[in-house]
Amino acid sequence: MALIVQKFGGTSVGDAERIKNVAQKVIAAKKQGNDVVVVVSAMSGTTDYLINLGKQITQSPSKREMDMLVSTGEQVTIALLSIAIESFGVPSVSYNAAQIGIKTTSDYTRAKILDINTERISSSLKEGKIVVVAGFQGIDENMNITTLGRGGSDTTAVAVAAALKADRCDIYTDVDGVYTADPRIVKNAQKLSQITHDEMLELASMGAKVLHDRSVIFAMKYNVPLRVVSTFIENEGTLIVKEKEMEDLVITGIAKKTDETRVNISCIPDQPGVAAAIFNKLGEKKVNVNMIVQSVGKDTKSQISFTILNSDVEDTQKIMEELKKELGAGEVTFDSDIAIVSAVGIGMKANAGVAAAVFDELAKNKINIEMISTSEIKISVVIRKDKADETVRLLHKRFFGE
Amino acid sequence: MALIVQKFGGTSVGDAERIKNVAQKVIAAKKQGNDVVVVVSAMSGTTDYLINLGKQITQSPSKREMDMLVSTGEQVTIALLSIAIESFGVPSVSYNAAQIGIKTTSDYTRAKILDINTERISSSLKEGKIVVVAGFQGIDENMNITTLGRGGSDTTAVAVAAALKADRCDIYTDVDGVYTADPRIVKNAQKLSQITHDEMLELASMGAKVLHDRSVIFAMKYNVPLRVVSTFIENEGTLIVKEKEMEDLVITGIAKKTDETRVNISCIPDQPGVAAAIFNKLGEKKVNVNMIVQSVGKDTKSQISFTILNSDVEDTQKIMEELKKELGAGEVTFDSDIAIVSAVGIGMKANAGVAAAVFDELAKNKINIEMISTSEIKISVVIRKDKADETVRLLHKRFFGE
Repeated sequence: MALIVQKFGGTSVGDAERIKNVAQKVIAAKKQGNDVVVVVSAMSGTTDYLINLGKQITQSPSKREMDMLVSTGEQVTIALLSIAIESFGVPSVSYNAAQIGIKTTSDYTRAKILDINTERISSSLKEGKIVVVAGFQGIDENMNITTLGRGGSDTTAVAVAAALKADRCDIYTDVDGVYTADPRIVKNAQKLSQITHDEMLELASMGAKVLHDRSVIFAMKYNVPLRVVSTFIENEGTLIVKEKEMEDLVITGIAKKTDETRVNISCIPDQPGVAAAIFNKLGEKKVNVNMIVQSVGKDTKSQISFTILNSDVEDTQKIMEELKKELGAGEVTFDSDIAIVSAVGIGMKANAGVAAAVFDELAKNKINIEMISTSEIKISVVIRKDKADETVRLLHKRFFGE
Repeated sequence: MALIVQKFGGTSVGDAERIKNVAQKVIAAKKQGNDVVVVVSAMSGTTDYLINLGKQITQSPSKREMDMLVSTGEQVTIALLSIAIESFGVPSVSYNAAQIGIKTTSDYTRAKILDINTERISSSLKEGKIVVVAGFQGIDENMNITTLGRGGSDTTAVAVAAALKADRCDIYTDVDGVYTADPRIVKNAQKLSQITHDEMLELASMGAKVLHDRSVIFAMKYNVPLRVVSTFIENEGTLIVKEKEMEDLVITGIAKKTDETRVNISCIPDQPGVAAAIFNKLGEKKVNVNMIVQSVGKDTKSQISFTILNSDVEDTQKIMEELKKELGAGEVTFDSDIAIVSAVGIGMKANAGVAAAVFDELAKNKINIEMISTSEIKISVVIRKDKADETVRLLHKRFFGE
């Protein structure tokens, strides 16, 4: 008998019929003799609907109250799924974050999970119940409701699996695994049967929407066997593993990200500590910076470019205005018309020519590279947004063939 | 400086504009130097929408899960109202039942409030915040979410006012006070400036939808000054008082109730304890019985008729089937096509002719009375549902004139 955590996203629980379908999948796993904990997201469209309700009142609503508002979405789904499971004669109970103590930091809209109390889940499992848990939400030390940010239900699922020492965490979604590129962009994209945590992490943080990057970090840290699998198609999906059994591909996948804004601050005094001042301040306000490029210009003044999530533009504008005065820097500009395209693969470590191949391919096709960032297993380039899909296709063709 | 609890119902918070309107009312009370706690219901239509979602999955969903589901409605409203208050520059914080420990019994869908922890509300008030509290919901001793039944937000408001020893509890609604009859049925119904707790209680439990009866019991028990007032029209509303300052009317109001079903069980063995067996069993299952009439028939067998809420029909059918076998009784029938019309007034105590006047008026107009029940200050009759409005108009005319 195994303990399995299953996670179903918004599309999988999009209406009453689909919820019943999920109930049957969950019951099937239970009837195979497993203990089953299910983590669910809000029904598709619900979170956006709720955010819009808040924005109808004011464009900059309090983040605490937005979490109070938005967290109702998952609470609706857990109740409906438990109702569906029980309607098939199998006992079930639903829990929101407060009820099972999913403790997080107090960073509203982007809280981090600190601890999960497994006592109540375990005792419900012992009673033979299927336990349904609300994804995406938590409570801080004062019982204020928090949310984990978009895609946070994946993180909840992996965190619950880690806390329960589950044998497996299956992430059910509307795709049937991790592909070498988004199949909607690249027709002959291939499904990967395995991918390492590191590769998945780079792909997830660079725009592959299959898994939330924090969920991969959790899985890696707590050694949770993770699988991405389709709610709608029966197949094996993709296993996220420590080390692949098969030979490494040079490149595992090509991803794009179109939800970031490039911030450019020019004429920065070329003194030590300026970059630190900027990124400390952004860090304090919980603005995540993705790519950073600093260049020394004329007059011993330099410029710094970095990318942030579009949703952080408002906060960042305020911070940069203050910093501009403090530092005596020049103009700060924001450009949301960009895309980041990344090529990711463990095999890159042993293949020095990958970066060169990326630059060559884009140069040949007259796609201008505006920023470059690399890690051991990843190359990312910033280009114009309207070139994003073309770039993904070109790089996929270069590394995987027609 | 006074401490005021205000309660706004679903229509008052029906959309973003109305929520902003409520925010301004609340802020006005705060700016007059008062501490303000606001209790809100779900936006109009939300509760029905959520119930329907549950029923799409199965016709008899688990009550625990229905409460988990339905309680999200109020959580949405508290967040939106706090956002609205803060958008006008006044600090505010919202709390759901779990966060302020609104402890109830575990009777899902009809829980009773046992205790409210005022610590967190008080400390937020001290910080100068307007506190917004979710009506209708509670938690049991195991942190399971419960709801108080329809109209439960009134009860939350009065219970919060009682726990905080508030100076006043104002129930804002879409009517501007308590009337001698529903103005939609009786055109010349008169607004009452005062009504006693007893009268209000009888009217509320007999179908006057202005206030939930349990909220009146709470107000009476804990001596909370209660006022019914309109969200949309500026006037004094109706004060619910211990004793009226003005002279008693013989009749204060005429109410109708159309959401009950008459249950009839015939050929019951005429032994002591049979009625007790029936009503004990119903009580165990938390079925509220309203009117009861027992009559002895031929062959020393008697019949019992009683009325229950339509929503309890399913539970009652199961119970009656069992009892039928146990007791060897005859047929059990259910009739939902009934209405209960009641005349209520403290003055009835001193006016013996009221019952006779009711029966006379209905007889003259050929309206058949099927059951009768009376208290010191109330006369209720069961009639055909399609005669309900006519009966209300006839009795109103009889006691209040044209």
